[in-house]
Amino acid sequence: MPALELWFEFASTYSYLAAERIGPLAEAAGVTVVWRPFLLGPIFQTQGWNDSPFNVYPVKGRYMWRDMERQCARWGIALVRPRRFPRNGLLAARVVAGAGHAPWVPDFVRGVYRANFAEDREISEPAVLEAVLRGVGVDPAPALAKAATPDVKDHLRAATEQAQRLGIFGAPSLVTRGELFWGNDRLEEALAWTVSGSAGPSPGSIEPDRR
Amino acid sequence: MPALELWFEFASTYSYLAAERIGPLAEAAGVTVVWRPFLLGPIFQTQGWNDSPFNVYPVKGRYMWRDMERQCARWGIALVRPRRFPRNGLLAARVVAGAGHAPWVPDFVRGVYRANFAEDREISEPAVLEAVLRGVGVDPAPALAKAATPDVKDHLRAATEQAQRLGIFGAPSLVTRGELFWGNDRLEEALAWTVSGSAGPSPGSIEPDRR
Repeated sequence: MPALELWFEFASTYSYLAAERIGPLAEAAGVTVVWRPFLLGPIFQTQGWNDSPFNVYPVKGRYMWRDMERQCARWGIALVRPRRFPRNGLLAARVVAGAGHAPWVPDFVRGVYRANFAEDREISEPAVLEAVLRGVGVDPAPALAKAATPDVKDHLRAATEQAQRLGIFGAPSLVTRGELFWGNDRLEEALAWTVSGSAGPSPGSIEPDRR
Repeated sequence: MPALELWFEFASTYSYLAAERIGPLAEAAGVTVVWRPFLLGPIFQTQGWNDSPFNVYPVKGRYMWRDMERQCARWGIALVRPRRFPRNGLLAARVVAGAGHAPWVPDFVRGVYRANFAEDREISEPAVLEAVLRGVGVDPAPALAKAATPDVKDHLRAATEQAQRLGIFGAPSLVTRGELFWGNDRLEEALAWTVSGSAGPSPGSIEPDRR
């Protein structure tokens, strides 16, 4: 099956939407999803930001939260605006980096996003991640122990460096066939590109007026 | 007919896509388009930028041009990457501001965008705008004379101030029923909202996996 890389950051609101939506869409398209955790912090720092751009630019932040409300209503995704934003997703990203291609990864990723954006829980706390791990049938102790090893830390650091080399500047980002797509809004197009090498017209689209 | 305001800036690549696409989509939805020119420059300055964010952040700019290539291919819209970006759209915006609801406005707007992004012409030059005006059947001299009047200059300045009060931070922006939508990607949703007060599920969408 052709593969689509989903580069995600646990602090990212629109990554939550992509993580919730990608499963059935990829299955319908016959595409394998490769879950690629990385950290936006080091990338934002190279752009001069020490915080989420949604906090650096409050007008954009106000828009994003309203847009998230509309998008979540549209897609049937739960949303509770968290009291803290952004939350530190380092430990959760290390858990994924340490898990490789374990079959529980997609459910764990969605569980962490729901904890952050639907349950307003502090995903930087090991106890919260332990509950999510147990919820997806994984023994928390070895998963968290592995997340703390130097190899896994190096692996995540290398992933973030690879993201920068790929030209990634935000999340979610989708990578396939040498193409980079940015944002949950590009999910369908990235899947189409994975299958056929072009984005193609969207279903139901009409040709623009060419007068 | 319900109305949707399209707030656009002639320097903006994604505004070009929205201007090309909105006509037949609005007609099919039974929605009147209100064309609202404004200037991004003063708004970007309040965010600390003296240039397009696509130039301030080159990684984002490289992505945008590749994304524009893909989007234009997808929608059948011509694109020639202009040698100068962004171009100054002040005079063209004043022509629109001076034209009110004249029936030639949509064709003029599209003509200016095509001059900039499909023909690589210098839209800040009166001669280029004269050619576009003639192309849409308008006598250039009075239209440009009106664009130079204090009333029209004040009108455009007031529109940009109104954009800021509406929370607009980029272009294109779509305003309807007290809601703000940002980006060509939100065009279909903004039209749906104009008609029914909700964005609704997209055609062909499937429910996300709620396990």
